[in-house]
Amino acid sequence: MMKKTAIAPANIAFIKYWGKRDVRLNLPTNGSISMNLSAFHTITTVAFNQTKSDQIFLNGIPAGKQEALRISAQLDRIRSLAQVSFPARISSKNNFPTGVGIASSASGFAALTLAASRALGLRLSKRKLSILARRGSGSACRSIPDGFVEWIPGTSDENSYARSLYPASHWDLHDLVVLVSRRSKKVGSSEGHSLVLTSPFFEARLREIAGRLRRLKQALGRKDFRIFGEIIEEEALNMHAVMMTSKPALFYLEPVSLAVMHKVVAWREEGLESYFTLDAGPTVHIICQGKDSKKLAQQLKAVSGVMELVDNEAVVGARVIEENLF
Amino acid sequence: MMKKTAIAPANIAFIKYWGKRDVRLNLPTNGSISMNLSAFHTITTVAFNQTKSDQIFLNGIPAGKQEALRISAQLDRIRSLAQVSFPARISSKNNFPTGVGIASSASGFAALTLAASRALGLRLSKRKLSILARRGSGSACRSIPDGFVEWIPGTSDENSYARSLYPASHWDLHDLVVLVSRRSKKVGSSEGHSLVLTSPFFEARLREIAGRLRRLKQALGRKDFRIFGEIIEEEALNMHAVMMTSKPALFYLEPVSLAVMHKVVAWREEGLESYFTLDAGPTVHIICQGKDSKKLAQQLKAVSGVMELVDNEAVVGARVIEENLF
Repeated sequence: MMKKTAIAPANIAFIKYWGKRDVRLNLPTNGSISMNLSAFHTITTVAFNQTKSDQIFLNGIPAGKQEALRISAQLDRIRSLAQVSFPARISSKNNFPTGVGIASSASGFAALTLAASRALGLRLSKRKLSILARRGSGSACRSIPDGFVEWIPGTSDENSYARSLYPASHWDLHDLVVLVSRRSKKVGSSEGHSLVLTSPFFEARLREIAGRLRRLKQALGRKDFRIFGEIIEEEALNMHAVMMTSKPALFYLEPVSLAVMHKVVAWREEGLESYFTLDAGPTVHIICQGKDSKKLAQQLKAVSGVMELVDNEAVVGARVIEENLF
Repeated sequence: MMKKTAIAPANIAFIKYWGKRDVRLNLPTNGSISMNLSAFHTITTVAFNQTKSDQIFLNGIPAGKQEALRISAQLDRIRSLAQVSFPARISSKNNFPTGVGIASSASGFAALTLAASRALGLRLSKRKLSILARRGSGSACRSIPDGFVEWIPGTSDENSYARSLYPASHWDLHDLVVLVSRRSKKVGSSEGHSLVLTSPFFEARLREIAGRLRRLKQALGRKDFRIFGEIIEEEALNMHAVMMTSKPALFYLEPVSLAVMHKVVAWREEGLESYFTLDAGPTVHIICQGKDSKKLAQQLKAVSGVMELVDNEAVVGARVIEENLF
């Protein structure tokens, strides 16, 4: 019964992955740090030798050509490790909409990699799983380990992987994900990555980032929320400054995103402490401590233009589960 | 009758003044290029020897302490040139609100410098006037010459001044000034200038800017609107990227500013061509050709949150006029 189902969380990066030193291997130009998100996940069932060729369903619909090619390429890597060539039947479901700033490829390729490797009887280490997931989609490597995660950038396929810095229980941080638009992005992350070198600021970003990683790890270890928050805002603005000075300019923020950011700063000045971060999209991630999450969620929902709010905590990484999507 | 009145326009910079190499002399880190604005001006009457001490009214109200000190210091420079020490009576009026992204100090110090020097019988060259105006407020040097103006950054008080590149008639460009907020800025331009060195991107900005100045001058000479527009957007985003990565981060844009910018890009894709630029404030400047100004003005006014729109053309610089504000 070469069939397994896995669940993997999406993750929010506090220090971002933006720029590749190797496009084929998804080696990043810099390390990154993230937290797995409790409310956003992908569940994927993989079964081998039930079909004549790879048969892939995403959210109940046959995968498009580009998606199917990318997924089959990832399956090939796993089949080659197991030294088999069985076709795979796959069903994968996200519990969240795609293209709104929640990285579906991260949870998706993490769940796929774990389910497919276990279905073929492979017992890979977390490090090896993370490396494999990275080949499918860079940030997917961070959805394998538990809780608070660091992606060590490495210099080759073998040493670029993510590991858990702390379990989810380490710190009661919340990520209030504020959806402001269901419009799909004009420029996807992969294309964005390739534009990074056209920004005059990218080199300066790289020079700074090692220091920022070190400071963030310290603040995470000491649970110093103020320092932690200041660093993640600095980092998000730094990445968006690089994006908006790329050629062509990448402009992911919507007016409502900016309104939410202004509110967060104003509330903080009044004593209600939270900090924003942003990925390559209009969605705003508001990071707060558990004690403030309910009040902040309430206030954020009242901001004009906010479409939906999802409260996340830190959570474990990819897991095999007993479910079956077929 | 040591009394004169002068009028001077505000100006919009296409390549920005952001960063000082000498704070006392207002020597800029880089050259800049601007256009005088036909709809925003300051009128200033200066009379010497009518009062016992400097008496300064701004928009009908006695100047605040900080403002008065700054204006008297500028008067001292002019009195010292004329080798007199007469007290001055001053009335100065802007035809636009302050603190919304129209540089009132530019038109203000240009008008003051011209009126005061002429009231004392000084016949200064345009270059000398521009140098003097610069001492009062950096960008004021650009409101002295006519039309399209370049500020040559220079290396000393004597060689940092603005000159006209082309008269106002050279090109029928319009600046549709879109006011989105009457809230005064939290961080003024002077403080912003001093934060520029805290951005990791400032050096990279400086390395690029000579090339951008050269390309903009070419496009201005050839009246190549597409190239011109692409450069000014690139420059505005570049400056705001430096601002938002300063420590603390300077965040001048309001949600409505961003909405206007998105609209301009969308309309352009549909064939209605205009480009945005931004100073240190939420006001958006939409640069277009005369043939499109009416249609664009109409569409911009319909954008939700836009408070007011003012259509500007290029105009002559500071002039002595026969009016009298007393």
